[in-house]
This record gives sequence, C-alpha cells and structure tokens, in this order.
Amino acid sequence: MIKKISPLAPDNFPKLPSVKGVLIGTAKSGTKYKGRRDIFTAIFEKGTAVAGAFTQSDVKAEPVEFCRKNIIDGSARVLAVNAGFANAFTGKKGKKINKSISSNIKKIIKCREKDIFICSTGVIGENIPIRPTNKAISVSLKTEENKWENAAKSIMTTDTFPKAAGKKIIIDDKEISLVGIAKGSGMISPNMATMLAFIFTDALIDKTVLQTLLNIELRNSFNAITVDGDTSTNDTVLAFATGKAMDGKNEKIISRTSDPRLKKFREAFSEIMHDLAIQIIRDGEGASKLIQIKVSGAENTSSAKKIARSIADSPLVKTAVGASDPNWGRIIMAIGKAKEKINPKKINLRIGSNTVIKNGEISRSYSEIKTKKYMSGKDILLDINLGLGSGFSQIWTCDLTEGYIKINADYRS
Amino acid sequence: MIKKISPLAPDNFPKLPSVKGVLIGTAKSGTKYKGRRDIFTAIFEKGTAVAGAFTQSDVKAEPVEFCRKNIIDGSARVLAVNAGFANAFTGKKGKKINKSISSNIKKIIKCREKDIFICSTGVIGENIPIRPTNKAISVSLKTEENKWENAAKSIMTTDTFPKAAGKKIIIDDKEISLVGIAKGSGMISPNMATMLAFIFTDALIDKTVLQTLLNIELRNSFNAITVDGDTSTNDTVLAFATGKAMDGKNEKIISRTSDPRLKKFREAFSEIMHDLAIQIIRDGEGASKLIQIKVSGAENTSSAKKIARSIADSPLVKTAVGASDPNWGRIIMAIGKAKEKINPKKINLRIGSNTVIKNGEISRSYSEIKTKKYMSGKDILLDINLGLGSGFSQIWTCDLTEGYIKINADYRS
Repeated sequence: MIKKISPLAPDNFPKLPSVKGVLIGTAKSGTKYKGRRDIFTAIFEKGTAVAGAFTQSDVKAEPVEFCRKNIIDGSARVLAVNAGFANAFTGKKGKKINKSISSNIKKIIKCREKDIFICSTGVIGENIPIRPTNKAISVSLKTEENKWENAAKSIMTTDTFPKAAGKKIIIDDKEISLVGIAKGSGMISPNMATMLAFIFTDALIDKTVLQTLLNIELRNSFNAITVDGDTSTNDTVLAFATGKAMDGKNEKIISRTSDPRLKKFREAFSEIMHDLAIQIIRDGEGASKLIQIKVSGAENTSSAKKIARSIADSPLVKTAVGASDPNWGRIIMAIGKAKEKINPKKINLRIGSNTVIKNGEISRSYSEIKTKKYMSGKDILLDINLGLGSGFSQIWTCDLTEGYIKINADYRS
Repeated sequence: MIKKISPLAPDNFPKLPSVKGVLIGTAKSGTKYKGRRDIFTAIFEKGTAVAGAFTQSDVKAEPVEFCRKNIIDGSARVLAVNAGFANAFTGKKGKKINKSISSNIKKIIKCREKDIFICSTGVIGENIPIRPTNKAISVSLKTEENKWENAAKSIMTTDTFPKAAGKKIIIDDKEISLVGIAKGSGMISPNMATMLAFIFTDALIDKTVLQTLLNIELRNSFNAITVDGDTSTNDTVLAFATGKAMDGKNEKIISRTSDPRLKKFREAFSEIMHDLAIQIIRDGEGASKLIQIKVSGAENTSSAKKIARSIADSPLVKTAVGASDPNWGRIIMAIGKAKEKINPKKINLRIGSNTVIKNGEISRSYSEIKTKKYMSGKDILLDINLGLGSGFSQIWTCDLTEGYIKINADYRS
C-alpha cells in the first residue's frame, strides 16, 4: 500500500528548540519496517520528573502496564519506543520482552528499572523480535543526533506525516523549551496501536504539578479527539521535565499549582498538547476534513461532552461532512441518540457562520447553497447550542471517507 | 444513484398467507419517488388489538409521537405509511400534517382518531407534501389488491429489496396467520429514517399480552441489530391482531401470558420478528457479510450485551470482516473498550469453528489460512466466551465497506 500524505498535513515540519538535559536518538531495527527508523530513545539527566496518562481500555498493552508501574515514582532516566509491534495481548512473553529491554538499557545507562519507560505501537498479539530490537535500542542510546524530525518519524505507523510542536518561553529570566512529538492516525486502529505522545521540557517542575497539569490539559487535547471511537490498547502520553534550563543556584522548583510562574508554562504546555492532538486528527485515516464540534447550552459539562461525542462518532454525520453535504438532519439525529437532556424546540445549529436551526426550526436565513460552499472547505465547525444551561464541551474529529475503509481493509493483506 | 440489490438478499420474496380482518392497499403519491408505490395502508376490522415499540431517540418524529399517544388505548382501525419524508424535526407543521392525514382517513373509514396509526420514513426536516399524500392515501384505502409484496415495496427507501416473513399455525383447531413486513437498511440513516416493521395476525389476542410479547421479542430481533450505531428518529414496530381467525362463538381471547395457547403463537411471532430484523441487516448499507456476534461467559446479561454491541459497532472490526481478514486484535480491542468486567487471561474467541484465542492466548491449533477462508464466506460468526459468569447476549450486524460511504455520501446530492 502506498501512503499518500494526508491533505490536512501541515506544509512543513516545525522548527523546534533543543531541550536541555535530554539526549535523543533513533535507529533501525529492520523488523516490521525495512529501511526506516523504528526505534526512538531519550536519555534524561538525573532529577528529571515524569508524568503520564494511559489508555482507559481494559486490555492494556504490556508497555502500558510497565509504564503505569514506573510512573508512581515520578522520575525518569530513559524512554525507549518501538514502532511495528504493540506488545499487547502477548501475556507472559510480553512481560519478558519488557524485562529484556530494560535489562539491556540498564547495561548502557546506569539507572533503576523504575526510571525506564518503554512504549510500543503496532500490531496487537505479535511478539516484538527481541534481539534486533535490543540491538537497535543500544545503537539509538549511543547516537547523539538530537534531530526531532527523525524522532517523530521513527514512531510513525499508519501515520502519513511526522507530528511535532515546540515553544520557547521565559521563566525567571531563563529560556525554557518545550517540545512534543506524537504519533497516531486517530484514536483508532489498535492494529497499529495507536496514539503515543511525548513532551519534553527543561523547566524545573515538580512531578506532582506536572501530573496535575497533564491531567487538566488532556481534556482539551488527547481526550477531546476521536477518529472512529475505537480505543487503543497502547495509548500513552508522557511528559518529562529535566529542570536543566532552570537549575542555577537561585532557581526554585515549581512545586505548587499556585506558583505564578506556572501560568506561562501551562499555556505553552497546553498549546503543544492541543497542537499534537489536532495533528493526529489531521492524519486521521482517510481524513479529508477536520471537524470541530462545539456544544454549548447543555445541562452540564458531562452532558455537553456526551452529545459532542455522539455527533463526532456518528458515521452518518462524518460521511455527510466528507461529501460537503449540509445534511443537518443527521446532526439532530446524533444529538437525539445521545440520551442526554435536550429540548428539540431550543436547539440551535450553526455550520461555520451559517445559521441552520434557530430555536428548533430551520432558520429563515438558511441557505443550503452557501452552507454547502462553506462545507467544501477543509476546516468545518459544527456549533450547537442546546439552550438549556451552561454546559460546554468541544471535540475534534475528521470525516469518514472511502480512504478509511481502504486503509483498514487493506492493512495486513 | 443506481441501487444494486444487496448480495445478502434472499433469492425470492416469500409466499405469504392472507390475514383475516386486514385489508391492505398501496398507492403512488408521486412526491419523492416518481413512478413507484410509496403509500401503504391497512384497514383493520373492529376489535383489532395493537401493540408497539418506538425509537429511544430524544428527537422523536411527529408520527412517532402520534402513534405513542394512540397506542395507549390499544385498538386499531387504520395504518397509513408514507415513504420519502420522515416528518421529523418539523415542529408545528409536522403535527398539522398528521392532523390532516387522520382527518382525511376518518372521512373514508369511520373511526376515532386514536384508532389511526401513521408512520413516516424518509428525509428529516422536510415537510410531507400533504395534498398528493392525502390523495394517495385515499386511493390506497379504496384498493383491495391485498398484495404483500406491493406493501413491502411501498415502504422502502434506501432498501434494496422488500422484506417480509410469514407463518401459519394452528390454535384451537383454527388456522392462524402471521405476516410481517419491514423496511430499513440498518438502524442507521435517519436521513432515510429508518426502520419500520408491521406484524399482522388474525389471532384473537389481548392488547396487553400482545404488548408484553412484543417487548420480549424485541430483545432478540430489532433491539439486537446494528448497522452503524446511529439511532433513527422514526423507528417503529407495530403488531396488529384482528382476532378474525378465532372469533367463532367458542373461541376465547388469549388474555394471559400463562395461556398455554400462547406458546405456539409466541414461537411464530418471535420467528417473524427475528427474520425481519435479520433481513434489515442483510440489506445494511454497503453490506457484503452478515455478522453474528455471540458473547457468553460475561459477568451478567447487561455486560454481555454491552460487549457484543461494542464489537458490533467497531468500524475497525467491521472493515476487517469486510476484508475477510482474521484481524482478531481488533476484536480484543473492542472487548477492552467496552469498559465491562473482563479478565484478558480468560478470554476465548472462535471465528466460525476456528478457535483463535483460548484462555487469553493464541490457540495452538489456530490457522490463519483456514480462518481467512471461512471469513471469505457471507455469514460470519464471532463467538466470544469471557470465562467469567453466565451472562449471554447476541447481536447481528454487517461489515463496513466502501459501499456504506458511497451510499451515505451520495444521497441527497
């Protein structure tokens, strides 16, 4: 299968700063993907804090279990990622593979097992070929290329473009860098299981504060996107803070969420998480349009979220958007099937700036031609106001096209 | 768009008995569909009991509201169905249209408004052209063709074949007929909104018993199917019992669920409901395979149902089946994302008679080649045993193919 780059891909790979205290490398294991980088590693200086979030699936991949155990301590020295094999539903063998990878790492970088984080992405049920993988991890740990683009490319599976975002901010007169890379072609495809994101910063920030921040920002980023409603066994987000840009003698660690210095960091952190999440949707399998769904006026936040999700996961809404068809009846259907409190007479719907439904009736100013023209673009906003309360939520998704079926029916064959 | 008949369609329209006390007719309104029947009516003799079930959506079409009100009384004289316009999300105008239709009917058949049942199927938000529709309903009420095939055809929208099932049984030495017709190309497509089913019998049966039976049998028929998880605004199932095959002087009405005569009737009723439901899946938009999903060994029934539904609604599972790909990792993913109690180590999976997973591990006897061969057929069984309890549920769905996208992206354009 030849991969066509998503029509929603950004024009260029972004320019990214280097992050003090992080040494990244890549290598080729020659296992699933021949002739391309498929191993990514990062070495962190001592004192690096780590925070993480993981798949909610009840079938968790072995590397997820491994990271969930190690994240409790909150300190990191090494991250190792392989692409091609998810190491999910692999039982005892899967656990052994993680043991072998961490033993191999400990031979090169002196650290405790709980300072190691392993992530895998790829086919469920197949075992990672351990010898070539360990060999490539060793090579990667010894390289000092520090090229983010190689890193972002090495973790790709069905992705059609590498995903990264970065930012520089000033805290305590020191320049702080934040860089994130991600992979994923939707929440989807456990087969190419699935979404990984890593954020690196040299800010000096306590692990608990970092974890709090990660949990909050997830809501508007990786937990606010869907391609097809399928949940991976391997979803992982990890944030690493080395502190190396701020560890002069006068610097104090950001150890409370009330620390005023956190505001700027949080903004940058939030932007990067959101940016990476949207890039995943822009690379959604078969995607030709990015759809933003805003639901306001719901009874409460949870209700808004469920309705937004119901619209975002409706194959009928997604195929209609893909066909640039202002088929608003399908949006109403998706609101109705969410089983949340609504009053049909109070529903308002705008598609972009086109008012379609006003207080439960077709707006007099509604023009199907104008709305269709708007929908022929690549960025589509569906803006629903339920007219009940102050509940608000938004979610991003992509359209459903024949490309999705082609990719998912062809893969493996 | 040229409609190709579903590859899963039955070879012939079934031979059906006539039902005493029911007079059916059809007509052409010439509105949405030119040159074909799009109006179906049935006139029932006095004393006919009716039971019904309706969409769970919070956006209910006007005809659904109309029937929900009238069903309380439990007696029926007239059923009138139009195809092409859903009369959903049409506000006051939609209510007026129903008033106008029932007034028109009352001019021809002397009855109370609450003895009338109106069903609509078609595009949401568009108004039914009332004059030609009323005119055609009048024509239909006066025809005496009594051809079930015409009836089944007249209620079709995106359907590619007419759906019907019938049976004869003996109760109290009298020949009892049951006939059902249905339309629907999935639970789906509110645009062509969506699923209607009507069951007619001349058994003498109390409305409460009929309603109880309908509620029970829904579980294994219309509530056990899904094409894409989208819920229509118009879903309606109505069962009419005229009693005319059993109304001799010695016949007693079946007025208790404990009546031993009910057993045979229930079996036939159940068979027809199930048969019609499966026909809807066989006509699922773009369907090339019928998928039966059995989940046993769950903690309880509710849990089994949620897991079965999670698998049935997973686009990734459905595309894999469509490609005859034994991509079992996706089934495991769909089990995991259901958020029900499971133990990965106890999961068993068979695809047809091929054991794939045994106690959480790939079976030694598993042959991908054999399983792929089985999956190239048209009827696919996914049989999951969770090894936890006695919870059991099954659901029927179809695969997800490019045909689904084509149908739903092309319609209206």
